[in-house]
Amino acid sequence: TRPLTLIAGPCALESREHALEMSHALREVADTLGVNLIYKTSFDKANRSRAESDRGLGMKEGLPVLAEVRERTGCLVLTDVHLPEQCAPVAEAVDVLQIPAFLSRQTDLLLAAGETGRPVNIKKGQFLAPWDMANVVDKVRSTGNANVMVCERGVSFGYNTLVSDMRGLPIMAEQTGCPVVFDATHSVQQPGGQGTSSGGQREFVPVLARAAVAVGVAAVFMETHEDPDHAPSDGPNMVAVNALPEILNTLLALDRVAKDHPVRIT
Amino acid sequence: TRPLTLIAGPCALESREHALEMSHALREVADTLGVNLIYKTSFDKANRSRAESDRGLGMKEGLPVLAEVRERTGCLVLTDVHLPEQCAPVAEAVDVLQIPAFLSRQTDLLLAAGETGRPVNIKKGQFLAPWDMANVVDKVRSTGNANVMVCERGVSFGYNTLVSDMRGLPIMAEQTGCPVVFDATHSVQQPGGQGTSSGGQREFVPVLARAAVAVGVAAVFMETHEDPDHAPSDGPNMVAVNALPEILNTLLALDRVAKDHPVRIT
Amino acid sequence: TRPLTLIAGPCALESREHALEMSHALREVADTLGVNLIYKTSFDKANRSRAESDRGLGMKEGLPVLAEVRERTGCLVLTDVHLPEQCAPVAEAVDVLQIPAFLSRQTDLLLAAGETGRPVNIKKGQFLAPWDMANVVDKVRSTGNANVMVCERGVSFGYNTLVSDMRGLPIMAEQTGCPVVFDATHSVQQPGGQGTSSGGQREFVPVLARAAVAVGVAAVFMETHEDPDHAPSDGPNMVAVNALPEILNTLLALDRVAKDHPVRIT
Amino acid sequence: TRPLTLIAGPCALESREHALEMSHALREVADTLGVNLIYKTSFDKANRSRAESDRGLGMKEGLPVLAEVRERTGCLVLTDVHLPEQCAPVAEAVDVLQIPAFLSRQTDLLLAAGETGRPVNIKKGQFLAPWDMANVVDKVRSTGNANVMVCERGVSFGYNTLVSDMRGLPIMAEQTGCPVVFDATHSVQQPGGQGTSSGGQREFVPVLARAAVAVGVAAVFMETHEDPDHAPSDGPNMVAVNALPEILNTLLALDRVAKDHPVRIT
Repeated sequence: TRPLTLIAGPCALESREHALEMSHALREVADTLGVNLIYKTSFDKANRSRAESDRGLGMKEGLPVLAEVRERTGCLVLTDVHLPEQCAPVAEAVDVLQIPAFLSRQTDLLLAAGETGRPVNIKKGQFLAPWDMANVVDKVRSTGNANVMVCERGVSFGYNTLVSDMRGLPIMAEQTGCPVVFDATHSVQQPGGQGTSSGGQREFVPVLARAAVAVGVAAVFMETHEDPDHAPSDGPNMVAVNALPEILNTLLALDRVAKDHPVRIT
Repeated sequence: TRPLTLIAGPCALESREHALEMSHALREVADTLGVNLIYKTSFDKANRSRAESDRGLGMKEGLPVLAEVRERTGCLVLTDVHLPEQCAPVAEAVDVLQIPAFLSRQTDLLLAAGETGRPVNIKKGQFLAPWDMANVVDKVRSTGNANVMVCERGVSFGYNTLVSDMRGLPIMAEQTGCPVVFDATHSVQQPGGQGTSSGGQREFVPVLARAAVAVGVAAVFMETHEDPDHAPSDGPNMVAVNALPEILNTLLALDRVAKDHPVRIT
Repeated sequence: TRPLTLIAGPCALESREHALEMSHALREVADTLGVNLIYKTSFDKANRSRAESDRGLGMKEGLPVLAEVRERTGCLVLTDVHLPEQCAPVAEAVDVLQIPAFLSRQTDLLLAAGETGRPVNIKKGQFLAPWDMANVVDKVRSTGNANVMVCERGVSFGYNTLVSDMRGLPIMAEQTGCPVVFDATHSVQQPGGQGTSSGGQREFVPVLARAAVAVGVAAVFMETHEDPDHAPSDGPNMVAVNALPEILNTLLALDRVAKDHPVRIT
Repeated sequence: TRPLTLIAGPCALESREHALEMSHALREVADTLGVNLIYKTSFDKANRSRAESDRGLGMKEGLPVLAEVRERTGCLVLTDVHLPEQCAPVAEAVDVLQIPAFLSRQTDLLLAAGETGRPVNIKKGQFLAPWDMANVVDKVRSTGNANVMVCERGVSFGYNTLVSDMRGLPIMAEQTGCPVVFDATHSVQQPGGQGTSSGGQREFVPVLARAAVAVGVAAVFMETHEDPDHAPSDGPNMVAVNALPEILNTLLALDRVAKDHPVRIT
């Protein structure tokens, strides 16, 4: 079992300059701490609360920027896909394709992502049980692509709230055989909680990340921004870049314990 | 306020023959009871639990069948769309476009559906609160299309279970100004409840439909099949065609009371 | 199947005068509409959010008042018990003993209530499934008392919110064989929702009551007050006495339909 | 911040011999690992699923046994109280009084427990939010007793299931100022899940305990038995005594990290 990987970056691809700055800053943090980094950003926010909300650079302008980040920083790059036809071009620009949680049951998208041969990170839908992910993973695997990760990001708990069930992490690991990612950012989202946008609870990102890492995960997903309060999306649940080192230090110490004492549920 | 409309039909478009038989049978039931009918069927089941599951005729073969049903029976026809590019061709074959619950936050799909000018029935996501639908409806309306219906189909309640919150019906009516539909079929779904497919509780379809109609709704959505136990999808929660008249009789009697005494929540 | 019974009254027993006025007013409403009335009030609010909150007259002062209400109005009277030793004296003053939802699993309380021989109305705990009530009812029946009613009052749904699952009504009817009561007042409670007291959504009392009656129940439980906004407890979810006739009119019309067309789930 | 305390013991007080054996065995485990132990057992299981279920020795026979355990092992002893009048006698036999989750809103019980002056461990009701515990704690504190602990044991999540929200641990710590206990045993209970008794998921006890300890708690509560599969109650969610050392070793390693890096949510 390998040490914890960090999947981090700003929620949205805001501009070429921002992406290059952010990726360099994160690379530096990761290198200092000796943690493996996958840079995450979205070229399109396709399911914002409102039609008027900012959606990011878009695929055409965004993919060259992602490719440039990859080349310049040497980081692996991850981004999400929303339609089957996006998968092939996205797979040329980035290393990991991500399936958004709302779309985790869309067969054609899963098949198209699988067919690129790239690793696929599937967010578990807010409406799915951990054991429901076995069928979801099988859809991608049916394309012959065995590089699948599954990602917990909270499950619906009443209205406008999610809860993170830590039992789900070993259940998914066992039932899918995939590396399990814990998305600490979206797990603290309060969907629709601010009327025309989603709220969040940034202060609980390290809380839930600690819990998940202590149980045992392959990677933590944490969106980050140099100024989260002014970020175009998911600001309330992103952590500041300069808060990362302290958070990661604790997570890495917990990860060492967890990897020395792996959980067994059978 | 108009009397109750019935949106009914088999979950999947199985074949041309099946569609014509079913639509004629339902038309007869509806005419006998004097209820307004919209015929519903899906040309593609795009989010089955497993990749191997049957998906229906597909768009290319299916749309001519839907157009034929419309012409032969004189019924309005409703079907669901899964990708933005499907909206325009589908709008030529049917009367009402439906947005699946999982996709109720996909901005491009909502815009494309709105742009057809056809009435759009939006299923509320299993992860959304009733008041979250105002933003969803606004996305469609931003295209200039004011013909929007919103549809309750249950909200996530623990794992593999949905619950129907009857408060949501007047909340959605008030906050969106749209006619409200109650989907009694999918509200009794047990998502993922049978391992590789979703379970259901057919016996509760009339229970929840009664409750919704008594509160006051514009339409009830009820999938139906001549032999639900052998239907290719959603069998466990479809009601038999020959059980419809008795169910509808009760619903129509409740609807008369409800429409005479409209609920007010403000 | 008998027509709908109404269980109504103010949440708390505020004073002798208030109880006599309220019970006469409700008796008048009930007689005018031809509905069977059980007068409900609590001599002790034993589980308020805060220790400082008003708890009502108490058992010693309260029981004679309840007995007087019974004698003067000729109404059946119902009140709740909180400790085993309260059951015997309470049973001398009132007609129906009620088990609070939080206490629905306390074996000694259920047994003591059963042993009085009085009818017992058991509120379903906010933490119980409908099918869990069969064991609860069996505890009372083990005393030889077969007069048991079960009462739905909402189930926990995320934090500080309840949801009413209308499937539970026929499930409880079938599995316990008891008359089923729907408590429309506490089903719209927002437990702890106002910081130091529970909030409520009075406007949804008639909404949920309609739904329950259309499915089919023996009785509706509705707390009421001549001035709910100034009531000492549960004000936010009590309806005004003068709003009752309109609400009941609709419920009685729905009840006639429901009783003519009883639901069957097996 | 002190190292982790362990609250452990068999669910029910089965017999004097069993209590003495178990407490000695646990004392030995605790001493070997250098962990502070509070011995837990219940003299009465007052809220079993069924009336017929075994309830334990009872208060009269049980209290002398608890006092003997305390004297012989030198352990602190904790037991739960169900009625106000039990508090004073129980306080003479044991060191810590525990309020069961179902009873966490019963004002008189909380006051009576507080008045003993003994430390009180309050289980958070399955129907309460973390922030609801501030009012609950205030009830005990109103007696002048400041020795209060609050205990997370899962919150209702759909039917027959609980979920543990790790955000609740620092919320309760901050809002009540009390030491926070995580009950890993009842958090994996499946209430009513076996028809006439509650089920459980023993394999997830260490999973949730790890998560809680990594977030930061004062104590972990873990019921244990030398032969859980034949225990009279809560067998499915108790861990075997001989599995404790390995579980505790991991928890203590995580606790060291957590106490070195305390969580801050404000």
